[in-house]
Amino acid sequence: MTTERKPKMAMSKLKICLIGAGPSGMSVMFHLNKLAQAGIQIPQVKCYEKQSKCGGLWNYSWRTGTDPNGEPVHGSMYRYLWSNGPKEALEFPDYTFEKHYKRAIPSFPPREILFDYLKGRWKSGGDFDNWINYNKIVRDVKYDNVSKQFNVRTKDGVKNEMGETENFDYVLVASGHYSVPHIPEFPGIDRFPGRVMHAHDFRDASEFEGKRLLLIGSSYSAEDIALQAIKYGAKHVTCTWRSKPMGFKWPESISEKPLIQKFDGKTCTFKDGSTTDVDAVIMCTGYLHSYPYLEDNLRLRSPNSLYPNSLYKGTVWMGPNGDGNDNGENKLLYVGGQDQYYTYTMFDVQAYWACKYILGDIKLPDKASMEADWKKWFARNGSLKDCHEEITFQGDFVKDLGKEADYGHDLDVDDIFHSWEHDKYRDILTYRDKSFASKFTGTQSPIHHSNFMHALDDSMECFLGDK
Amino acid sequence: MTTERKPKMAMSKLKICLIGAGPSGMSVMFHLNKLAQAGIQIPQVKCYEKQSKCGGLWNYSWRTGTDPNGEPVHGSMYRYLWSNGPKEALEFPDYTFEKHYKRAIPSFPPREILFDYLKGRWKSGGDFDNWINYNKIVRDVKYDNVSKQFNVRTKDGVKNEMGETENFDYVLVASGHYSVPHIPEFPGIDRFPGRVMHAHDFRDASEFEGKRLLLIGSSYSAEDIALQAIKYGAKHVTCTWRSKPMGFKWPESISEKPLIQKFDGKTCTFKDGSTTDVDAVIMCTGYLHSYPYLEDNLRLRSPNSLYPNSLYKGTVWMGPNGDGNDNGENKLLYVGGQDQYYTYTMFDVQAYWACKYILGDIKLPDKASMEADWKKWFARNGSLKDCHEEITFQGDFVKDLGKEADYGHDLDVDDIFHSWEHDKYRDILTYRDKSFASKFTGTQSPIHHSNFMHALDDSMECFLGDK
Repeated sequence: MTTERKPKMAMSKLKICLIGAGPSGMSVMFHLNKLAQAGIQIPQVKCYEKQSKCGGLWNYSWRTGTDPNGEPVHGSMYRYLWSNGPKEALEFPDYTFEKHYKRAIPSFPPREILFDYLKGRWKSGGDFDNWINYNKIVRDVKYDNVSKQFNVRTKDGVKNEMGETENFDYVLVASGHYSVPHIPEFPGIDRFPGRVMHAHDFRDASEFEGKRLLLIGSSYSAEDIALQAIKYGAKHVTCTWRSKPMGFKWPESISEKPLIQKFDGKTCTFKDGSTTDVDAVIMCTGYLHSYPYLEDNLRLRSPNSLYPNSLYKGTVWMGPNGDGNDNGENKLLYVGGQDQYYTYTMFDVQAYWACKYILGDIKLPDKASMEADWKKWFARNGSLKDCHEEITFQGDFVKDLGKEADYGHDLDVDDIFHSWEHDKYRDILTYRDKSFASKFTGTQSPIHHSNFMHALDDSMECFLGDK
Repeated sequence: MTTERKPKMAMSKLKICLIGAGPSGMSVMFHLNKLAQAGIQIPQVKCYEKQSKCGGLWNYSWRTGTDPNGEPVHGSMYRYLWSNGPKEALEFPDYTFEKHYKRAIPSFPPREILFDYLKGRWKSGGDFDNWINYNKIVRDVKYDNVSKQFNVRTKDGVKNEMGETENFDYVLVASGHYSVPHIPEFPGIDRFPGRVMHAHDFRDASEFEGKRLLLIGSSYSAEDIALQAIKYGAKHVTCTWRSKPMGFKWPESISEKPLIQKFDGKTCTFKDGSTTDVDAVIMCTGYLHSYPYLEDNLRLRSPNSLYPNSLYKGTVWMGPNGDGNDNGENKLLYVGGQDQYYTYTMFDVQAYWACKYILGDIKLPDKASMEADWKKWFARNGSLKDCHEEITFQGDFVKDLGKEADYGHDLDVDDIFHSWEHDKYRDILTYRDKSFASKFTGTQSPIHHSNFMHALDDSMECFLGDK
């Protein structure tokens, strides 16, 4: 028997509904639990997760279309995905990769390595399985102006039954925005004699061995799927862009064309009049912000953006007009709604800011100041000229949140991102073979035993050299 | 100027919410309008259709996954689909194929021919575009025991906005049950190095040219996709069954195996211990009855069945216990909820029965008799031994509805179905080359200019011989 006293968790009467147990939602629970462990009275948290596991899109599923509960498959994760940014740019200051793996590992790990790291970090903060209601689909969220609470109705996906409506003081939306694909139409695509799909349904590059692919789009999905496809044996990849080409020094087997104008059978005609024949089409045309469970006045409507409209500090919903009216009285928060350079750490500082705000440690200015603030950031975002300005912008956003929330760690990795962009433009095939140093341990990462373009086995054992 | 008086449509105060503008929903509107044209006072009808066009699954879309509104793609239609039953078994007595095409056409037409025929029949009954609210997704249907009405909440898919809640006296569910796939799990499928998909996402057989396919399932999807795949150049198709094989005299390029036990890479191991390597997997594992918009007490839960539980006359919802309680007081009707031999005509007579019931021309017996009635049919369905007994069963169901509703035409085509089944078991490759006679015109259909297995062009022009 021990005399040691286990601290009892102090719960306030406030109730929080947290939607989604991906990296953003997990960071919310992590910090609330840490604060509780420090003796601070925290609200009750109920997290609803549509999937049967936590981790959001870091869960790989072979499924496409609908999940076992008949709901649209949430994840867009594919096999053989390797980090496209250095791990040193997403490392948690309180839980480094070296701490998790008990050794230094290379800078660009595959999915399993990143996911295992995430799980380790979550575990270091507590066990949240009791907080999370799995297979629960949030169906309706309304704000009741009389009771001053949100009414939240959920569905049990396994039982195929609606649950009771529950009331909450705060709602935190952390359901992500890379789940519902944007799929445009092109003349003749309805008669294309081959596979037409969105990157959301891309699972295994080896399906395209020996094939000629058309990728529509010029952002991360196109960039990465083009490389994956070539790596696993595709014959040729043509990427077609609307605004501007990616502009990397592609190998001969990848080329870029201005926007596809029409399909005649397998023949694609591009805006410059050139043509090429392809066997399959993958739309890398991005995703929709989709929150079908939120009432109109609570629903963010935005393209993918480093600073979506109507969010004070990128977090507090300001209502459909962005002026702080009809917005759930500043009690609806979006976590992780941004387009991203910074990822895990941005979600983390934003989650921390949200927790401190709910606990009352952060005060909001008046409506007009809040509106002016998000509009200032929004306008600055609109004026950014290149990826380097974007990096600095998001770095400033992360720093702003960290400072106000008193996060306690410097999360600035702008320099890593700048350097990484230079690497990519120098050579898109080798940028993942570079090494960066951890900001928190100072350790320079070792070089991986295989170059990315030759590393076909993405298992943890192989990456760690245990196999 | 004419002195002829156009009859004014007489509307009762009753309001009907009709969910879905596929063949079942269109039949409801067709008959209500016909009744109105005959001077009968009909209820106001508001039809909500998720798609941008009427026709339900007869609309082909190249899209898979989500539609332009971010909603799950409804249709399971694929290219090159030809009717798998003779058109004489689905012909409307009041609108024959000969009437529509002004000539006799072969018995097994491709999709476009059937769809055009459907559109012709609908047009012969009126113009329903004013009744149909397109791109409207029904989100919630509840029955209010106080007002004795259904509260129906819809979403505008294009505007991405919730609509007002509307109240209705009746709700007719005609949203179909071949839209949400059932996708089981198999050991090793998560590491299968190739495409894994459900038949719902199957679009173009030519994608599988030169490939070895595994089809999981032994019902219509497997049967038809196996033939399509071979027809368009697949190297080999293996079909794997759980309960029993399809048992047709397959060509050498199609074989049947007992249930798949596991995948090791591309190698499938079956229950008899045999193995085969495949390049892609198509799950022909059926669909879920999915009515996510209905409150629990209103929601049919059933496997695909010729006689789903808890539906009096296969139509009137009897509540979760099937006893006529908590069921929306007999004002929730399902049209087209059955598994099918009979199709268009069954939907039509069921729609007609529903209209006559709502108009008060058909009276319901007491709850106990209603329960006894559906249970009798349900039990009989459970005891059916083969496809011929199933055909007779569904023929009896159709006749029962027709008789009570005074449909006015004999819809019995059991003999055509029996003969068709014999043809299929004689030769699965040639059964679509047979000719049947119309029950209503007596005309024997001409033989198509190309045998099905050689007819690669499924266009209307080609089929009609105009090309």
